[in-house]
Amino acid sequence: MSLPKGNAVVAQSGGPTVVINASLAGVVEAIQQSGLADSIFGARHAVRGMLEGDFTDLTSLDGAALDLIAQTPGASLGSSRDKPDEEYCKKIFEQLSARDIRYFFYIGGNDSADTCRIVSEVAQQAGYELRAFHVPKTIDNDLVLNDHTPGFGSAARFVACALLGDSLDNRALPGIKIDVIMGRHAGFLTAASALARTEHGTGPHLIYLPESTFEIDRFIADVDRVYSKEGRCMIAVSEGIHDAEGTSITQMLAEQLSGSVERDAHGNVQLSGSGALGDYLARLIRERLGEKLRVRADTFGYLQRSFADCVSESDRREARESGRAAVQAALDGHEGASLTLRRTSDDPYTIEYVPVPLQEVARKTKVMPASWIQDGCDVTDEFLSYVAPLVGELPRIGSV
Amino acid sequence: MSLPKGNAVVAQSGGPTVVINASLAGVVEAIQQSGLADSIFGARHAVRGMLEGDFTDLTSLDGAALDLIAQTPGASLGSSRDKPDEEYCKKIFEQLSARDIRYFFYIGGNDSADTCRIVSEVAQQAGYELRAFHVPKTIDNDLVLNDHTPGFGSAARFVACALLGDSLDNRALPGIKIDVIMGRHAGFLTAASALARTEHGTGPHLIYLPESTFEIDRFIADVDRVYSKEGRCMIAVSEGIHDAEGTSITQMLAEQLSGSVERDAHGNVQLSGSGALGDYLARLIRERLGEKLRVRADTFGYLQRSFADCVSESDRREARESGRAAVQAALDGHEGASLTLRRTSDDPYTIEYVPVPLQEVARKTKVMPASWIQDGCDVTDEFLSYVAPLVGELPRIGSV
Repeated sequence: MSLPKGNAVVAQSGGPTVVINASLAGVVEAIQQSGLADSIFGARHAVRGMLEGDFTDLTSLDGAALDLIAQTPGASLGSSRDKPDEEYCKKIFEQLSARDIRYFFYIGGNDSADTCRIVSEVAQQAGYELRAFHVPKTIDNDLVLNDHTPGFGSAARFVACALLGDSLDNRALPGIKIDVIMGRHAGFLTAASALARTEHGTGPHLIYLPESTFEIDRFIADVDRVYSKEGRCMIAVSEGIHDAEGTSITQMLAEQLSGSVERDAHGNVQLSGSGALGDYLARLIRERLGEKLRVRADTFGYLQRSFADCVSESDRREARESGRAAVQAALDGHEGASLTLRRTSDDPYTIEYVPVPLQEVARKTKVMPASWIQDGCDVTDEFLSYVAPLVGELPRIGSV
Repeated sequence: MSLPKGNAVVAQSGGPTVVINASLAGVVEAIQQSGLADSIFGARHAVRGMLEGDFTDLTSLDGAALDLIAQTPGASLGSSRDKPDEEYCKKIFEQLSARDIRYFFYIGGNDSADTCRIVSEVAQQAGYELRAFHVPKTIDNDLVLNDHTPGFGSAARFVACALLGDSLDNRALPGIKIDVIMGRHAGFLTAASALARTEHGTGPHLIYLPESTFEIDRFIADVDRVYSKEGRCMIAVSEGIHDAEGTSITQMLAEQLSGSVERDAHGNVQLSGSGALGDYLARLIRERLGEKLRVRADTFGYLQRSFADCVSESDRREARESGRAAVQAALDGHEGASLTLRRTSDDPYTIEYVPVPLQEVARKTKVMPASWIQDGCDVTDEFLSYVAPLVGELPRIGSV
C-alpha cells in the first residue's frame, strides 16, 4: 500500500468553538511528525479561501505556536457559511490540484463532511488522487455515529456554569428567569443546563428542547405550577423551540415583526444574535400570570461557543486527538473518512476514534433520544450520566 | 475603650456578585476568631429578613463550610431590592434590639451604606448602642472613595473574557457584533471590554459608556467607518447609554413599545433582563447601513455578575478581606464605618482597607473620569493600567 505524495490542506467551517483550533493544532502536528505531506496549507475562511486561492503556509509552525493556537477560541483560519454545490467544489478542486494537494482535512459539522464527499468525487472523476478527511466539530452535538462531538463539552460546560450561577442569583432575588440556549434541531446543549442542579436546590426547574413541540398553554401552566410552589422559576429554553407545525417561535416572531426572516446559505432561519425569543416568552408570562411579576430573560448567544475562560479539559484534549486521528486514518491508507468519537467505557470514561465513510455522516442530523426527555420539560438521569464526563467537574458550591 | 457586648448580624443587599459570599465568610470568620460578638445572625433577604425577623444562626459555621460559601456565586443569605425609609428602619431596629444585636454588617452598594446610617441613627435616638459597618460590593464599581469595589473585578473579567472570545468568533465569521454590558450610570464594566484587545487585533473597536451622550448619527458613522476599514466591527455598549436629555435608550424603547416602563423600589428604570437595546441597535444599523449586513447582538445580562467559572482571584481575596476588615474596624472601636479599598501601590499592586464615616459613601455615585474616556467611543491606556490588576491574567491566545 503506498500513499500519494504531495501536500495537505486544512480548513475550519461553520460556527467556531473554543476548541476547534485544538483540532487544527492536532492535524498540523500529526502531519509534521509523520511526514504525511510536504507542505501544509491552511485555507482562509474555509471553502471561500479554497475557492479564491487564499492559503497560508502552516508547514513550519513550531510546538509552542501550536500549543497557543490550541487554546485559542474561534477559528484561527477563519470560517464560512457558504454551502458549496458541485460547481463550487470543482473550482476548489482546481485550486487544490494546482498546489499538488493530496490530503484535505476539514474540521466542521455534517455539511463539512458533505463538502469532503463532493470534493472527493470531483477529484475522482478527474482521475486525481485526493483523500478527504472530516474532523467532527459542533457545539450542537448533532453528528450521527458520534457519542458526542468536539466543541459540545465546552459549550455544555458554559451553559451549566451559567445556569449554576444564574440560579443562585435567582434564589437571592426571586423571580421568573428565562435563559435561551443555542440549538436549532438538537437539544443536547440546552439539556446540559440540568447539570447545574445541586443538592442545594439550584438549577433549572423547566427545560424546553426542540425535540418536543412547544405548547404555549402547557408552558404557562408549567411556569405557574413551579412559581406557585417555589416562589421562583428558572427556565432553560432552546432557541429552536417550535410549534406543532414545526415553525420555530423565532421565525413566527420575525414574520410578525417585519414580514420577513433572515436565512443563511443553508436556508436556515437565523435564530441567534437576538434577544427576541426570550423577550417574547417574558412578555407572555407577564401577560398571562401577572404584570407585576419579576420576569427576566437572558440569551446566551455567541458566548456559549466562544467564551475564553470556560473550557472542558476532556473536550480540548479530544478535539486535538480528533485532528491527530484524522491524520492517522490517512497514514493507515484510508482514501477518505469522517472521524467519529465512540465511547468505549463509562467508568473510567474513555473514547476511541473510528474512521467511517464520509456519506455515513454527511448531511445527517442526530437529536436527543426520546428516552432522555421527561414530561416535555425535563431530562432523565440517563442523560445526566451521559453528559457529565464531557463537561468535567463543575465549581462546588455551599449554602447557609 | 470598651466595646459593647452582645450579638452581631450580617446581611447582603442589592444585585449579587460571584464574590459577595466571600465577604460574608470574611465577616463571620473574623467575628468567630476575635470573639467580637456572642452569636452571629444572618438576615434572610437583607432588610426584608431584618424587618420580618427571618434570621439564621451562623455562629458555628466551620472553616470548611465558610471556604465553600466563599467560592459560591450569588448571595447565600438572599438579597432584596427594598429601599428602607426611616419607618422601615425603626422596625428593623426593634428586631435587632430584641436580639441584643450590637454589630450590624451590611454587604452592598451605596444604598446599603445609607441603610447602615439610618439604622444607626434610629438606634442612637433610642439610646441603644448599635455599631453599623458597610462592606462594599457592586459590579458597577461606582462607590466613591474606593479605588474599586469587590465584585467588579470578577464581572470585568467575565466581560473581558467574553469579548476576547466573541471578537475571535467575529473575526472568523465577519460581521457587526453588538455586546450589551451592565451599568446604569457608571461605565467601568463596559470599559473593561477593552482588556480583550490583544496584539492579534481582537477586542472591541467601539466602546459606548453612560458617561457620554449617545448620539445615533455619530454611532452609525463610527460603525460605518470601522466596518469599511476592517470588514467587521465589534461594539461594546453599556445598557445605561442615554440621549442628550439623559433618557436611557432602553426607557425610550419601553415607552415606545408599551407606553410604560418597569421601575424598581429606587425609582430606577429596569435595564437588564431583556435583549431590547441590543436588538434595537442591530435594527438601526441594518436600516441605515444595509439590510444585508450580518448584524448580531448579545446582551450579557445576569451572567456577568453570577457566572460560576470566571472569577478574578484578587477580587475574591479582597472581598473576603473586606469582610474581615469591617470586623477589625469594630474591634478598633469605630462606632460605625464604611470600609473603603485604597490602592497603595501600582507595582506591585497592593490594597489597604480604610474605614470612613458612612455618610461619606452613602447615596453617592462615582462614574468614569472624563480623562479615561477617549473620543466618546474608546477608553485610554491609563484606564487599562488601572483595571488590569483587578481582572488578573487573561487566557493567552495565538494566531495563524
